[in-house]
Amino acid sequence: MKILNALGEPVQPAHQRIPADILSLADYERHAVHHVEQAAWAHVESGADQGITLAHNRAAYDALRLLPEPLADLREAHTRTTLFGRELISPLLLAPVAYQRLVHADGEIATARAAMAMQIPMTISTLASHLIEDIAQAARSASRELGRSAPLWFQLYSQPERDTSLDLVRRAEAAGCEAVVWTVDASIKRSRYPLPVGVDAVNLRGNAQPRQTSDLMSENILFGTPLAQQAPRWDELAWLREQTRLPLAVKGILSPAAAVRAVDMGADALVLSNHGGRVLDGVVSPIEVLPAIRDAVPAHIPIIVDSGVRYGTDIVKAVALGASAVMIGRPQLHALATAGMLGVAHMLHMLRAELELAMAQTGCATLAQISPRVLQPHPR
Amino acid sequence: MKILNALGEPVQPAHQRIPADILSLADYERHAVHHVEQAAWAHVESGADQGITLAHNRAAYDALRLLPEPLADLREAHTRTTLFGRELISPLLLAPVAYQRLVHADGEIATARAAMAMQIPMTISTLASHLIEDIAQAARSASRELGRSAPLWFQLYSQPERDTSLDLVRRAEAAGCEAVVWTVDASIKRSRYPLPVGVDAVNLRGNAQPRQTSDLMSENILFGTPLAQQAPRWDELAWLREQTRLPLAVKGILSPAAAVRAVDMGADALVLSNHGGRVLDGVVSPIEVLPAIRDAVPAHIPIIVDSGVRYGTDIVKAVALGASAVMIGRPQLHALATAGMLGVAHMLHMLRAELELAMAQTGCATLAQISPRVLQPHPR
Amino acid sequence: MKILNALGEPVQPAHQRIPADILSLADYERHAVHHVEQAAWAHVESGADQGITLAHNRAAYDALRLLPEPLADLREAHTRTTLFGRELISPLLLAPVAYQRLVHADGEIATARAAMAMQIPMTISTLASHLIEDIAQAARSASRELGRSAPLWFQLYSQPERDTSLDLVRRAEAAGCEAVVWTVDASIKRSRYPLPVGVDAVNLRGNAQPRQTSDLMSENILFGTPLAQQAPRWDELAWLREQTRLPLAVKGILSPAAAVRAVDMGADALVLSNHGGRVLDGVVSPIEVLPAIRDAVPAHIPIIVDSGVRYGTDIVKAVALGASAVMIGRPQLHALATAGMLGVAHMLHMLRAELELAMAQTGCATLAQISPRVLQPHPR
Amino acid sequence: MKILNALGEPVQPAHQRIPADILSLADYERHAVHHVEQAAWAHVESGADQGITLAHNRAAYDALRLLPEPLADLREAHTRTTLFGRELISPLLLAPVAYQRLVHADGEIATARAAMAMQIPMTISTLASHLIEDIAQAARSASRELGRSAPLWFQLYSQPERDTSLDLVRRAEAAGCEAVVWTVDASIKRSRYPLPVGVDAVNLRGNAQPRQTSDLMSENILFGTPLAQQAPRWDELAWLREQTRLPLAVKGILSPAAAVRAVDMGADALVLSNHGGRVLDGVVSPIEVLPAIRDAVPAHIPIIVDSGVRYGTDIVKAVALGASAVMIGRPQLHALATAGMLGVAHMLHMLRAELELAMAQTGCATLAQISPRVLQPHPR
Repeated sequence: MKILNALGEPVQPAHQRIPADILSLADYERHAVHHVEQAAWAHVESGADQGITLAHNRAAYDALRLLPEPLADLREAHTRTTLFGRELISPLLLAPVAYQRLVHADGEIATARAAMAMQIPMTISTLASHLIEDIAQAARSASRELGRSAPLWFQLYSQPERDTSLDLVRRAEAAGCEAVVWTVDASIKRSRYPLPVGVDAVNLRGNAQPRQTSDLMSENILFGTPLAQQAPRWDELAWLREQTRLPLAVKGILSPAAAVRAVDMGADALVLSNHGGRVLDGVVSPIEVLPAIRDAVPAHIPIIVDSGVRYGTDIVKAVALGASAVMIGRPQLHALATAGMLGVAHMLHMLRAELELAMAQTGCATLAQISPRVLQPHPR
Repeated sequence: MKILNALGEPVQPAHQRIPADILSLADYERHAVHHVEQAAWAHVESGADQGITLAHNRAAYDALRLLPEPLADLREAHTRTTLFGRELISPLLLAPVAYQRLVHADGEIATARAAMAMQIPMTISTLASHLIEDIAQAARSASRELGRSAPLWFQLYSQPERDTSLDLVRRAEAAGCEAVVWTVDASIKRSRYPLPVGVDAVNLRGNAQPRQTSDLMSENILFGTPLAQQAPRWDELAWLREQTRLPLAVKGILSPAAAVRAVDMGADALVLSNHGGRVLDGVVSPIEVLPAIRDAVPAHIPIIVDSGVRYGTDIVKAVALGASAVMIGRPQLHALATAGMLGVAHMLHMLRAELELAMAQTGCATLAQISPRVLQPHPR
Repeated sequence: MKILNALGEPVQPAHQRIPADILSLADYERHAVHHVEQAAWAHVESGADQGITLAHNRAAYDALRLLPEPLADLREAHTRTTLFGRELISPLLLAPVAYQRLVHADGEIATARAAMAMQIPMTISTLASHLIEDIAQAARSASRELGRSAPLWFQLYSQPERDTSLDLVRRAEAAGCEAVVWTVDASIKRSRYPLPVGVDAVNLRGNAQPRQTSDLMSENILFGTPLAQQAPRWDELAWLREQTRLPLAVKGILSPAAAVRAVDMGADALVLSNHGGRVLDGVVSPIEVLPAIRDAVPAHIPIIVDSGVRYGTDIVKAVALGASAVMIGRPQLHALATAGMLGVAHMLHMLRAELELAMAQTGCATLAQISPRVLQPHPR
Repeated sequence: MKILNALGEPVQPAHQRIPADILSLADYERHAVHHVEQAAWAHVESGADQGITLAHNRAAYDALRLLPEPLADLREAHTRTTLFGRELISPLLLAPVAYQRLVHADGEIATARAAMAMQIPMTISTLASHLIEDIAQAARSASRELGRSAPLWFQLYSQPERDTSLDLVRRAEAAGCEAVVWTVDASIKRSRYPLPVGVDAVNLRGNAQPRQTSDLMSENILFGTPLAQQAPRWDELAWLREQTRLPLAVKGILSPAAAVRAVDMGADALVLSNHGGRVLDGVVSPIEVLPAIRDAVPAHIPIIVDSGVRYGTDIVKAVALGASAVMIGRPQLHALATAGMLGVAHMLHMLRAELELAMAQTGCATLAQISPRVLQPHPR
């Protein structure tokens, strides 16, 4: 029986070259639907409930209006920045994205190679479909081959047992990861998508996961069950901070209160994220809470913005409002599905090009020159 | 001749199991259209005039944006609350919904059993298509079987003769109903839907109903006719208050002035409702007038919010703005049509699950912790 | 050759009975398309340019939100009002609508009969497709037959020669018209619709009309041509005021400045109108400028609101903001096309019914009780 | 093989007469799609990225609401204005539009003839597909034939070598151009459209153009390449100002800061433009920044508004907010493709007619009478 994509066609193999009509990240999404099995596609693309937040993540960027400035001196222009002591070629990072083998057999291995080729940091997910060690090994090989590199980071979902969490951190450290990104916004969510054969959380094999099993007649649904008992709490941050000397970013922050608390407890950076609109529908978007959070935490704490970044202009808008960098999520899967490693590399290259164009048009020769001045006050 | 649904297909029988693709209340609506005769469906789904209020009832919730707070302590989390001295498992009630046999042969009997199984109060409509006594009997049987229970309430439409109204209240009391919900917003409305054979207001049999019969040449249409003469007035509340010792809620309140007046005249609770957008198009939605009404009446008066609640996040939003509980209307019919008693139970179970997820994500372990803090100030 | 409607079907004859599925004025529009020749339909329905104002005329009403008040005493409720000394059954008037024979062979004759039957005033257009005298005669006959009546008004477009204008006024006076409505917003507009054989401005026969004939190479288009030379100016109002003792309303006012000037020069009433969005696209809607104009002119000057009224709730909104009455335009043609005289009568009956329902739901037993209180402050 | 248009039909030849159903510029766009090869059409019509700015250019006009004033004295009405010492029949100019032979074999030659016939200035693009000299010659011939004329202007894109730029200016001067429009907003942009055989930048033949050639593995994309090195800077304006005695307009200004700087460095006029939404998506529209820029520069500096003007009402709105004139871009191509020279002439004639109608309806007999008074304060 043929495996079908969401258009009812047989799933198409990934391209060996980049299709000529791909001019932006949106084009990768348009292509990718042909290359992914339909249930996996629905899982990748979906937002919670009505998808209001999923749409709002874009609308919040689109509502901001840029104010061009012509004729700037671009002779020394560049997009370099420094994060956790490492110089980056561009304020761009690959967000942690689970189960990448859902869309391409090479999964995270291909993504890691593309990231190194483009000198863009990659964040390995706890739910990666390849072993941390194998991903890191692929990145190292690619770096050696190409004479280029970028940091690997590791994203941690807290496990029911702290020892399991710690074991993951230790493996990431051993594999050369340079930072830990602790995700706090998705320990409790609904998902009914059953992973297909051959794709699973290989890094968690052997560790029992709590399951949300509530039948119709059970009085306790979430509250009063192990899932609620074992959900991570703030004291877990204190514990985690003590376990590793790696820089620690907390991902899933959307309020000044949580931002301040995380920094007070030792977070080295914050990732503003609503998990791409996947967890709770109707929540705020990172870009709209960024100014208040930037004001609330010390200036030396980097703020990374996730959820909805798709264009170079989005990066300029985020940096103008105080972001140090942005994370790219679903477009990894779109590019990976469409053209494998080559697609991911090209996707990152396009974003870099778009960022430079947007900076040139707004008269910014460096990231430091991107200020609120580039945004129209009170759009609409 | 085959009975057709609104899609032009023969009406399908209700499912014996819950279809696997039902993940939210909206999915029940999507399914239900297949199971209901077309004119009945139009009657169930319609809003007044252009349906502006029908749509606005959703838009008003969707415009509110939630502010997540991660890492809350959920070990003691619960959704319990107390209404009229009874502890409820969740701040959820079944709104009065007329003529439930329009969508399923078991009608209110099935709904009552589902309500008891899920421990959610049900409000029996004056226009129920089963006798009050039979519905109450079904609820009692289900409670005994399952070892679970929840209150039954009775919804009263004022009748042209006070004796008729009083007779309904006495029957409800005798049947064990624990509260009276007096609906004041629909005594005068337009409806041209003729009930099919076998479905009627069985609790009113033998009592003449005033009819709005204005032919083209009659100078009086509504004003100057018995309908306007006999429409309930405020003094009816004073009278009703004296007739029963049951708690008395007034349903159909949308202004602080009416709220204060109702409480002053003895209402024990208010139900904010625009009758699901069915009566007058272009009116305000309960959720948007809730804050002003909450401010206007004493804190001990529970405010219940009706009209448009479809997601767990809606409940969090309503509670954040001062609601004690919410009422669910049309989704009863959607679930009943799709899967009978099982559907109604599952619909309520999903709402409870969604509420807990929304509370977990917004950092609220109890209803009391749900405050305006969970809402983004000045969305958009 | 068959005459086709805008759906490509042969034009259907008007119904002899009111179709059962007509529940609102919008339903008449939906039906009427079947009964009108396609070019005439385009002419009737079109707005200027992009139709922004045409749509805005509705959106401006839809943006206002009503605040219901239950339980009002409706025993003495009525919708009567007085205009120019005549008591009216309802604050409803038929706007002047040109060339009614475009949509039904009986044209203005049918409309006049319906108006008398429903006791609603009719305004005869300068561009009526029946003679003023014949329309008035039809109205008188209908009144006698039915024992009911309502005023006829006459709408004047200024003619290039004042004598021609005066002759029209004298004929209207002689025919028993009780008021003159002087339209000032459409003396200069573009129209490329050629009237079909058998429909023309019979009341102007024998009087040359200036034509806007600019070929591509003519340097003067509008300015510098007779059309601009002969366009009416404010001094025409002073002249007109002296010519007749009938009450004089100025139609096409949208600013406080013009309103004050018109009243200062002797206007007895104002009709706020943007000509149904037909003349200049992108202009304000009457309902949104009503409050400022109501504030600017003395309270005894009636303000009538035209352009976009389609529902009883619209009338409540207009009265709440200061209108004395509303005028209904295109729906006359929709009803006339669909069911002739009967349709127009039924259309007016529905509006009256909707007005009473809206008043009942907002707790208003008389027009005088309709105040800004019925509108939600700051909708959205 | 047949050349196809964007509808998949063979490209249709231009009409020899103006189609009867063309009543506005939007109708030319609707027609033109039939007459242009599909890739060229995509190139002509497209906006950057998501087309947000392309759409916003229209929405910004549509959001402004006009306030009609009836009964103005139009006997001396006209639309004349003076720019750079030349009296113009109307505040209308043809914007520089590149490669006009993409849509019609006569290209800029036809446009120049139409401009002279209609007495509307034309701006010759650096990227014209005919030689400056040939376009000017065609304009002169047409002027002689018709006894009518209007200025030609020349639009300059800075070239990598100043000598090349200077040579273009000298050729324009020699050809009789009366002003230089220096475009500063598009020296750096992305375009992947390959010109078809027979259409090229004939005025630049023999001068190497820098190309943005970044392959996937090149570390420098825009920044650090010749494109960024050679992009024009503010000092180029000082240089250019010294090279010619022609009036100098700077095109592509969107901020008060840039406007003031340009004027301080000798610009005689400003053209507010976002290049029709083609360069950077999400930027402000000229009409919304016009008031602030008008306030920032001396009153004697003319401000011309480009990007999105399609209706006569747009011109009234722009003039009301401080514009001296407007430029028309894409509609040139729509009209040229549909009906060649005749189309362009008719398009300009329609705009003039619409402007006069809009002025008549808003009570303005001259451009000087068009003030903010014609705009509704705070629309929406």
